Amino acid sequence: MADSPEFGKVVIFGVGLIGGSFALALKAAGEVEEVVGFGRSIATLTQALELGVIDRLGVNLGQEISDADLVLIATPVGQMPEIMARIAPYLGPDTVVTDGGSTKSDVVAAARTAFGERVGQFVPAHPIAGAENSGAAAAKADLYRERKVVLTPLPENSVLNVARVRSAWEWCGALIHELTPAEHDRVFAAVSHLPHLLSFALVHDLAVRDNSDLFFTFAASGFRDFTRIAASHPEMWRDISLANREALLEELDRYRAQLDELRSALATGDGQRLEEIFDTARTARRAWAEGKS
Amino acid sequence: MADSPEFGKVVIFGVGLIGGSFALALKAAGEVEEVVGFGRSIATLTQALELGVIDRLGVNLGQEISDADLVLIATPVGQMPEIMARIAPYLGPDTVVTDGGSTKSDVVAAARTAFGERVGQFVPAHPIAGAENSGAAAAKADLYRERKVVLTPLPENSVLNVARVRSAWEWCGALIHELTPAEHDRVFAAVSHLPHLLSFALVHDLAVRDNSDLFFTFAASGFRDFTRIAASHPEMWRDISLANREALLEELDRYRAQLDELRSALATGDGQRLEEIFDTARTARRAWAEGKS
Repeated sequence: MADSPEFGKVVIFGVGLIGGSFALALKAAGEVEEVVGFGRSIATLTQALELGVIDRLGVNLGQEISDADLVLIATPVGQMPEIMARIAPYLGPDTVVTDGGSTKSDVVAAARTAFGERVGQFVPAHPIAGAENSGAAAAKADLYRERKVVLTPLPENSVLNVARVRSAWEWCGALIHELTPAEHDRVFAAVSHLPHLLSFALVHDLAVRDNSDLFFTFAASGFRDFTRIAASHPEMWRDISLANREALLEELDRYRAQLDELRSALATGDGQRLEEIFDTARTARRAWAEGKS
Repeated sequence: MADSPEFGKVVIFGVGLIGGSFALALKAAGEVEEVVGFGRSIATLTQALELGVIDRLGVNLGQEISDADLVLIATPVGQMPEIMARIAPYLGPDTVVTDGGSTKSDVVAAARTAFGERVGQFVPAHPIAGAENSGAAAAKADLYRERKVVLTPLPENSVLNVARVRSAWEWCGALIHELTPAEHDRVFAAVSHLPHLLSFALVHDLAVRDNSDLFFTFAASGFRDFTRIAASHPEMWRDISLANREALLEELDRYRAQLDELRSALATGDGQRLEEIFDTARTARRAWAEGKS
């Protein structure tokens, strides 16, 4: 930190949990001179300013973007195409843009549309950080410490631009992985988006029954864990589901085939097959949990 | 506790978490004179004896049953028919039998077969207590405090016999509910057995892929919660699934119809319908969680 910071001006769209924590982490590392915030809500921006998450509220978009070192778009993915279109005319030659979206193929498609021949200045990323709380007040400098961040670089990205985004996340303490956008979307459809859909579906199916109270009365700890993600934000998950529709449909169809097999084993009383499936699942789940700790 | 205990001799089949905690709770309340344990494993029985969970190992089945006040069958449901058949010839006129099984229609059917005209002496019950740990060493006197126990009385049960089983569980600190066996099985198929099946299915579907490591690498907190119950005991869940097959198939088919609706909304890009389903689920999940706390 005796050296000058790696980043001069960082511009962040969406100064909630994701964008705000990124700002705080770079500040804590002493690797940013100035953080400028843009967003839809003046209240949120003002709060971020008061909390020291950002240094200034952005006013003149063109001016702020043209000499920014790094731009992070940390809004819901549904808002990204418009933001990209707005900033595209002002990108300086050395400005690198990245994002924090949970889906990547759709974000990359939007970036290609907005940035055209300059899409090489956009390096897509997805920080894997829980979002039980949201908003600038929930932001914290250590949110990304030891958490994974997936970069999905484009063929057009220069090595230097990828390295700059990687470096920013490394200053946040994150563990960097790289996947293609398609790999990313398939993996997260399976391990995140599909489980959310399945959990929402179970609770919805109970909630719409005339006697739903009877069911909820006897729901216990297994139900609690299984449905915790069904308390997630409906608009956010609508956007993620639609944004990753193709991969999610593929995973959903695979899962339905798996359920068909279970149903068949159950209907025919094939206890051996049921136990095999349960046992394979338990072994894998335990190995995963042990690998995590 | 100045009065004499409500129960003289209590005989328990299966002195693990469920049966052992029942014994310890009655002892802590001072409401049992003597607890006699039976089981498949001498090691478990010996451990239960050393821990003071039981007072004696049962040897002569006929002798122990004929003058028992209360018999609790706390084994996996798959073992219950045989145990019932073995004890049936020795039931004293005032002996009340109950169980701790997770399914009820099948247990009741087994009881009717074993006890015949004396089935009124069998009062079915299901204590809703987590089982992350098992065995006599995990047993504790307060396992059932403020936890639900569902009684599913039979038309043949006398008021007195139901009252005795209710009283035993009340001494354990439990909250007593009553359902019919069919209601019980439908409710638990929906809020417990189906979620287990769905969680096992998700992990199995990932585990059998050639590139499963890639998927597990990026599984995070949502996956962790959703799949916690996929680490449950395969043999136990095989037995529960088969024992409650009819209700579970009905619930599974309802759920598959719910997934079909979600798939259709996703495939047609119907964001409004997706958000409605997610929102209904979130509202119900939050109301449930608040009601619990």
